Amino acid sequence: MPVPFAELIQARQSVREYRDLPVADRDLQQLIEAVRLAPSASNSQPWRLIIVNDPEKKNRIARATFSALVSFNRFAVQAPVIAVLTIERPKIVTQIGARLKDREFSLIDIGIAAEHFCLQAAELGLGTCMIGWFDEEEVRRVLHIPAKTRIGLLITLGHPPEGYPLRPKTRKKVRDMCGLNTY
Amino acid sequence: MPVPFAELIQARQSVREYRDLPVADRDLQQLIEAVRLAPSASNSQPWRLIIVNDPEKKNRIARATFSALVSFNRFAVQAPVIAVLTIERPKIVTQIGARLKDREFSLIDIGIAAEHFCLQAAELGLGTCMIGWFDEEEVRRVLHIPAKTRIGLLITLGHPPEGYPLRPKTRKKVRDMCGLNTY
Repeated sequence: MPVPFAELIQARQSVREYRDLPVADRDLQQLIEAVRLAPSASNSQPWRLIIVNDPEKKNRIARATFSALVSFNRFAVQAPVIAVLTIERPKIVTQIGARLKDREFSLIDIGIAAEHFCLQAAELGLGTCMIGWFDEEEVRRVLHIPAKTRIGLLITLGHPPEGYPLRPKTRKKVRDMCGLNTY
Repeated sequence: MPVPFAELIQARQSVREYRDLPVADRDLQQLIEAVRLAPSASNSQPWRLIIVNDPEKKNRIARATFSALVSFNRFAVQAPVIAVLTIERPKIVTQIGARLKDREFSLIDIGIAAEHFCLQAAELGLGTCMIGWFDEEEVRRVLHIPAKTRIGLLITLGHPPEGYPLRPKTRKKVRDMCGLNTY
């Protein structure tokens, strides 16, 4: 059922526990569509989205997100799906603009696309968690991603356990993040 | 009225024409809230949002988005509001992670926050356009932004003219942007 956008962004949260339940193809297709329609600088669409639900590959990628030292992503093995967003070369005009303005638009675009994925998932009742810390080389190996292609983000996806709590959001106060007509 | 997320992302488009009509305070507050609640790497919230609706300042910023040579942003002067998203230094842990992984998470976060703004605006019936091309020094000057602070994006905001057309989205086909279990 549609909810106001203000409710949807409250419902989206990082989910770090998943039920042992696959994600329906129809839901996957809707998530792909949400990424596909995301806006980007000069409409470059500088990404590729890889949906990983093959258990062996998915587990190898999950294990590439943690180590003995960095263990906060251990939950990733529970997720039945991991989505991988690569950073593709934008159009020449965007590349020149990015160079001139020293601002890597592709990363901004990856953020937009990833959030389309996570908000759409929240509407479908699915949980997600964006993961920026992973062994890029290993993920490339598992998915045959070209050596020169950077990986922007991984996103875990699955059904949260029943009763998984909606945590209140800890954020800066408006006065600490917003200005009117001045910094 | 709430619409499914799939409809909301269809409704959001770059609007490059605006009516001479201010944006209501209540709408501005809802837009600020949508940015405030955006997720970010390690919840760093590495941004500051400046709402510019003072006509003189707004016009100076609008004029900083185009020149005789680069004229595609001329429409910006029509917008009654321009929102400015600065890139603030994330938490130390995020900075170290970004350095180690050579991935500037702050830009991904700016993209997420900006899209929260644009989707919320679309729901409110308002039009937006993200602008990545602008004279950063001049925008800093107008808004007293510290010299070391980078500006991520400007977003124009206002009421589209009546009957402003919803353009069909030109995007890559699914098979050209998506893979299943392999790149």
